Parts: sequence; C-alpha cells; structure tokens
Amino acid sequence: MRHFLSIAGLSREHLVEILDTAESFAGAGDRAAGKVPLLRGKTVVNLFFEASTRTRSTFELAAKRLSADVLNLDMDTAAVQKGESLIDTLRNMRAMDVDMFIVRHGDSGAAQFIARNVGAGVAVVNAGDGGHAHPTQAMLDMFTIRRCRKDFEGLRVAIVGDIRHSRVARSQIAALNLLGTRDIRLTGPQTLMPAGVEQLGARVFSRMEDGLAGADVVIILRLQRERMRGGFLPSEGEYYRRYGLTSARLALADPAAIVMHPGPINRGVEISSLVADGARSVILRQVAFGIAVRMAVMSLTVSAQISGRAK
Amino acid sequence: MRHFLSIAGLSREHLVEILDTAESFAGAGDRAAGKVPLLRGKTVVNLFFEASTRTRSTFELAAKRLSADVLNLDMDTAAVQKGESLIDTLRNMRAMDVDMFIVRHGDSGAAQFIARNVGAGVAVVNAGDGGHAHPTQAMLDMFTIRRCRKDFEGLRVAIVGDIRHSRVARSQIAALNLLGTRDIRLTGPQTLMPAGVEQLGARVFSRMEDGLAGADVVIILRLQRERMRGGFLPSEGEYYRRYGLTSARLALADPAAIVMHPGPINRGVEISSLVADGARSVILRQVAFGIAVRMAVMSLTVSAQISGRAK
Amino acid sequence: MRHFLSIAGLSREHLVEILDTAESFAGAGDRAAGKVPLLRGKTVVNLFFEASTRTRSTFELAAKRLSADVLNLDMDTAAVQKGESLIDTLRNMRAMDVDMFIVRHGDSGAAQFIARNVGAGVAVVNAGDGGHAHPTQAMLDMFTIRRCRKDFEGLRVAIVGDIRHSRVARSQIAALNLLGTRDIRLTGPQTLMPAGVEQLGARVFSRMEDGLAGADVVIILRLQRERMRGGFLPSEGEYYRRYGLTSARLALADPAAIVMHPGPINRGVEISSLVADGARSVILRQVAFGIAVRMAVMSLTVSAQISGRAK
Repeated sequence: MRHFLSIAGLSREHLVEILDTAESFAGAGDRAAGKVPLLRGKTVVNLFFEASTRTRSTFELAAKRLSADVLNLDMDTAAVQKGESLIDTLRNMRAMDVDMFIVRHGDSGAAQFIARNVGAGVAVVNAGDGGHAHPTQAMLDMFTIRRCRKDFEGLRVAIVGDIRHSRVARSQIAALNLLGTRDIRLTGPQTLMPAGVEQLGARVFSRMEDGLAGADVVIILRLQRERMRGGFLPSEGEYYRRYGLTSARLALADPAAIVMHPGPINRGVEISSLVADGARSVILRQVAFGIAVRMAVMSLTVSAQISGRAK
Repeated sequence: MRHFLSIAGLSREHLVEILDTAESFAGAGDRAAGKVPLLRGKTVVNLFFEASTRTRSTFELAAKRLSADVLNLDMDTAAVQKGESLIDTLRNMRAMDVDMFIVRHGDSGAAQFIARNVGAGVAVVNAGDGGHAHPTQAMLDMFTIRRCRKDFEGLRVAIVGDIRHSRVARSQIAALNLLGTRDIRLTGPQTLMPAGVEQLGARVFSRMEDGLAGADVVIILRLQRERMRGGFLPSEGEYYRRYGLTSARLALADPAAIVMHPGPINRGVEISSLVADGARSVILRQVAFGIAVRMAVMSLTVSAQISGRAK
Repeated sequence: MRHFLSIAGLSREHLVEILDTAESFAGAGDRAAGKVPLLRGKTVVNLFFEASTRTRSTFELAAKRLSADVLNLDMDTAAVQKGESLIDTLRNMRAMDVDMFIVRHGDSGAAQFIARNVGAGVAVVNAGDGGHAHPTQAMLDMFTIRRCRKDFEGLRVAIVGDIRHSRVARSQIAALNLLGTRDIRLTGPQTLMPAGVEQLGARVFSRMEDGLAGADVVIILRLQRERMRGGFLPSEGEYYRRYGLTSARLALADPAAIVMHPGPINRGVEISSLVADGARSVILRQVAFGIAVRMAVMSLTVSAQISGRAK
C-alpha cells in the first residue's frame, strides 16, 4: 500500500490493518494519544487544488502529530499559474525530497494521475477527487462503526441523501462491502441516485422510512446546496420533509443505532438539530477518529515507500 | 484562569502571576530566553475572523517558542462559508483535540461567546474583539511599565488619542486600576471620548498638555484612519497639531517618562518621528515583551485547563 | 558573510565555503541527508513582497530541515497595508527576536535596503530582487556544475535567452567569473541583451549555434511571457525557431555537456521536451541541490551573525 487512492483495489486485510493501526493512535477515550515520532524528518505536502479548510486541517494535524514537517501549497496561486504543467510541478516537488502528497482535486482520478507520475519514493494520499473517492473519510467512518458496533457482518447500514454526487458514499459502500456488510441500503431522491446503482452492492429505497427500518448505522450525507441550482431538487424544505433525519424517523431504526455525518452539517436540511446533537449521534467522534485514521494511512504508506525503496 | 478573555474579572494576583511568568520567558536583556518545551505536543489554533498579520505573528512565534504546533485558520475562507454555524465549527475543531484557540474577531464579546461554547479542555485567548478588549496587549504594556518603572502605585499614566474606539485603552485602564495606579489621565478629542468615561476610573483632559503634565508613562494610541471618514476628526494635520506627541509636549511630562504605543505607528499623525525613535520611546521593547507575555498567558491557561481536566 | 545579498562583493573563498557546506547537506546521491539541528530555536521569516510559491517552498523546506521555525509573511496583506513604513515593519519583526529574513521583492536593491536597516543580529538572504540578483539560484547552479563537471577553470558555459531581464543570469555570470571560468558566452535576441553586456565578463553571440559550439554547460533561461507584450519578441514560435534548445542544437555542444534551467520550464518555447527530459538534463538535480545550497547559506549567515554578536 504505497499510495492510498481509493478503497477499490484494496483487500479486506488492508482495511483491517489501517483500522488496527489507527487504534494505536486513538487513545483510550476519544482523545488522541499524543505526539509520536514516526514521520520525524519527513515532509508532507498538502497539494490542494480545491480549497477545503477542514480536510486540510485534519491532515495537517495528523502529520504534525506524527512529527512530520508540513508544507501547504495552494495550487491556485502556485507554479501552475506560470504555465508549468502539473507533471513538471510534481517532478520539482519530488526533487525537493518531499515524502508525501495529500491531494485534493475537483477532477475524478486526479490523485491516481499524480500517483502514476510522481515517481518512486513519494506516497500519494487522496483527500477527495471530484465525484470519485474520499477514502480517508470512508475509513474514519469504518473506524467509528467498529468502535461503536464491533462487527461489520450482520450490520444493517442506511446511507441517506445525494448518492449520485457523493465521493464519500462511493468509498463507504466499497469499504462496507470489503468488510463483510451485506445489508447496505441507499435512500434519497430519484434524481440523486447514480445510474447503475444496483451494481454497487447496495439496495435502493425511494422511501427513506423503508431504508431506515431496523438499521444499525444511519449515515446522512451532506446536501451540497449547489445541487439546488442544477434542478436536482425542488427546495431545501421539500428535501427535509422527505429525507431529513428527524427523531421520528430515527425511531424506525434499531434502538441502538448510531447516526453519522461527514460534516459540515446543514441543520434543518438533511438532519434535525435534535438528532445531530442527540445521544445517538457520533458525528463529533468521527472527527476525532479522523485524525487517528489519517495518521494510520500516512504512516502505513510512508513505511511501504521506505521498504519499497530499500528493495 | 482557564481562558484569557479580558482584564475585567481578573484579580490583581492574576495579573501579577502573568507578569512574573512572562519574566521567566523574557531573558536578561530584551531578547527572549529561547525555546521551552512547555506546550510540546499541544496544538494552538489561530482563529482569525479579522486579518491581523502582526498579532497573528506574535502569537504564532510565542506558541512555537513554547514548542506547540500551530494551525492558522483564516475564517473568511473556512467552513463558515459552507454555511456551518460557528458553534459547529468550534465543536469540530475541539473534536480534533486542539488545545487552544487564539481568537481575533470584529465583534465585541466574540471571544467570550467562543469560550462559553468551546467545551472543557480547550483554552481561549482573546486577541482582540471589536471595541471591547485586547487584554494581551494591555498585559504587555503592564510588563513594559513594570520593567521600566517598577512600581504601579504612585504612577501617573497619560493615555492619548481615540479612547472611544480603543479596545487597547479599555484593557489598559482596567489593568492599571487593578495594579494600584490611581492617577490615570485620558486625553483626546471630545468626539473620541466614550460616554460615561468617568466611571472607568480615569480623569479626562481635553487639553493634551494638561494630561501630560508630570506623567511617568505616556501611552499614545494608534489613530485609526477610518475614523476620519466617520466625521469624528477634521483632518490628520489638525489632529497632530492638537494631540500629536512632539518633543515639546513630551517635555511637559516627567523627565524620566517613557513613551509607549501599541503599533503600528502613524508617524506625524499621533507621534513625531523624533519622539518615536527617541531615547524615551519603549515602543520596540513593547513588541519584544509581547512575545514573553503571550507565552505566559498561553502556558498559564493550558496549565489551568490540564489541572481542571484532572479533577 | 552576515547577509547573502548578491554574488558581487563576495570572494572566491566565500563561494567555495558555501559549496563545501552545501556538500555536507546534499547526501551521497541527490537526496538530502535528512534533518539537522543547526537552526533549532531560530526563527526564519519568509518576507515575500512578490508571490513565488516555488522559491518560498524551497526556503521553507531548507529552514525546516535545519530545524528552524518558519513564519510566512505575505507582505501584500500585512502591516504595510495599515500605512506602516517598511522600516517600522522590520524593526517590529526584529523586536520579536527573529533571526533571518528571506526577502523576495520586485525592486532591485530591496534586499540590500532591508539588510542595511534591519539592525544587528538578523541575517538577510536575497531570494530575488527585481532585475538585480538571485544569488541562491546562482549558487545552486554552481553547485550543480561542480558536482557534474568538477573544475570551473577551462569550462565553456553558454547562457541562452533573456539576459537583459534576468537576475539569475547576472548572478550566474558573477559567480562563474569569481570561480575562474573564463569562457562565458551569452546568446539570445538582440533586444534581450543588456546594454554594456561586454563589461560583465562574457562574450555575446547573436547566433545561438555559435554560442553553443563546444560548450560544457548550457544554461537555458526562462522566457518570461510578459516580455511578449513589451514588444521585445515577435512570438513564442519565432523564439523557439531561433533560440529554443533542441536536440539538433545541443549536438553542437560538447558530447558530455549538461543542460540547466532555473525552472519552471516552458516546453516548446525555450527548450524541447526531448532535451528537458533527456540524459543530459540536470534540471531536477538543480532543484534537489537547491535545498542543500539554501541550507548552507542560511546556516553560514546565522553563524556569522552569532559570532558577530559575541564580539
């Protein structure tokens, strides 16, 4: 695992190794276990072609807790402007002896492209590429589920919202399938379901209530408000009436169900404040675990690069 | 002292503890005593809703000298834009196991609001909130006075300029009162005096010369040029003629008087270059001491959070 | 060598000391030798009045590999905006006990001006000032030449392109002269040759082919596209036809010649992709060596400041 680009292509063993490694960084409670020297002397570059303060911050914190040096490159204002090609930028950065790129890009496949072209010795971690994948988000979700519910087999997981445009959902479904979860339900407006959704290894429910019935895990996706303008949705109010997670709807799920959301949440659009802040919400624990999971991915890929280089 | 939000509410003992702690960071001369490991493994977040390179830099330097990791969040471009509420942003950041927020905000009371909502275990330091308070600036001023003049009792302090809009002046007056200074004089244009100024524990002098007579400490406030547009002032030239600190006016103060200014200075507007660069100016020493004082505030609040958490 | 402002004014011994020191940071291959504690506890400030992600990154990486703390100040949005003079900004930064300024500025002489005014104890390194100098770039070029070709005497060096506007070329010619290279050839459009070029210690060739004949080192300068608008050049295509480095033209040079470029490269404008990516290109090694050379310049100037202060 020299790069971490998408869940697709990984084995169940890969995912379990990431989760187990993250466990060692997550501490006893929800707080991190403090600073470790695993990446001392290494340089991690945040290569963000798309602004995302939240995601950049979690990677920056994870890298610093591993004792790495961090270089933030806002690619809007960088050498790209001077007419340099992306490949030349990568080669230059690599020549500077950096050890890892954290890549966020608006185009699907960008992280793969970079990994193919960056050359040996530099790990690439996908921090979200277009509508394609957001695999560290999916892994922190798996970590949260494992912490709260132990076993993936026999689990009933409902994912609610804009499946079509969600790189998060795509990565979650792939990870759940690998980990043995067989009952995955997708629910949301018809217009926000991807074509060929059945091949993903999940069942589609047009009524949210049917999808929620007896679920152990309810994952609410963020509603991108820009979808409104695309005509995919009539209005936020209408969306909330049909797909907002209220206490009444949550009562349909298993009594011990947990509620997850990748954040940032739109209160009163995809989730009610009562549920978001309620006893079954693990939304903030997801954020906490996100640091540990990113530390795991970063240390595993760097290790793989080093042992690969040694050969 | 789990947070550091304003001088109001603190005791004389609190202020003296900060000054004594800063003394340990300030070194023998004016240079800092080097790096200390007090905040190693801690994460300090600069949460700036209002740009201020100078203030951010001093906090960043202070944090790094305490061996903390620093995360700079420019809140104009952060999650706020995605429609997330401030409280949700805070909860998320807290979930990432950060240890301190340095808050700069254009609204009075913003730091208090954040401290109330951030939850246990995270210290909040006010780096300036609207017209309300700028307490680390006031403390570095107190530190400078104590280094130069020893005793606060019996001291005659003149504060000159735009008292009405100055969070710095408000914090200075509160600190001086707590430390036992009884002779505090405020001078500046009538239009720039706050309503009810007498209740602040200071006397008002409309003629600058009367306010300066025999003063031991002369604090010049920065004239915010945007006040001109508000009709508070006729012109910079007129302001300088009546309230600019010239050598002639400084001669009215005590022969050993020190001249202070929070910076950045407007030469020829509120102070002459001769005075700003003269032997009695301690303006640059204030900057140097500012690092030590901020190191003191940061280490004391983090300590208080840790001992609070242990209970 | 308390500052590093330009090649002019330095002795051959200075340059050799920098190259030898860089050698200790460059490792056996082209990769850096890892982190060293030489600047632990020191603060390096990137004072960039002109955006340059690439140059800022190399200095930031070099500083961090020396274990320094780095403060990035984008001077467009800094105190300058508040009407503070540059000298006041410098004095303030110096009062904060910073140890080094890396200065990038659009005006020739800016780094010198800052070095003259910054006061004792703070080193200034020129990271490019207008059309004047870019001395760390020249030194990394010298380092690359020494690694690849050993001896500077007897070397035939061709510099191709916009000599007139190139601070890089000016610094390269000065360094080559100091190190004993006597055969320096400049070639490029007449309109892009500086007035009085003969006094620089180099010969001018209007036909690129004549300049390349038998050369051991071919340095291609970056064509600033903004020059087109200034009427200095007819078109990129025309430029490439007359001065682009193609395989055919490179065949005129010595069979063991190396090809250098300060980057970022414009493929198909000043150099063909075949040559840029070919066996004789050392362009990416230049980037790698740039970190080691900047580490050398930073550690030497800080050492000189410390021993100067001790006297």
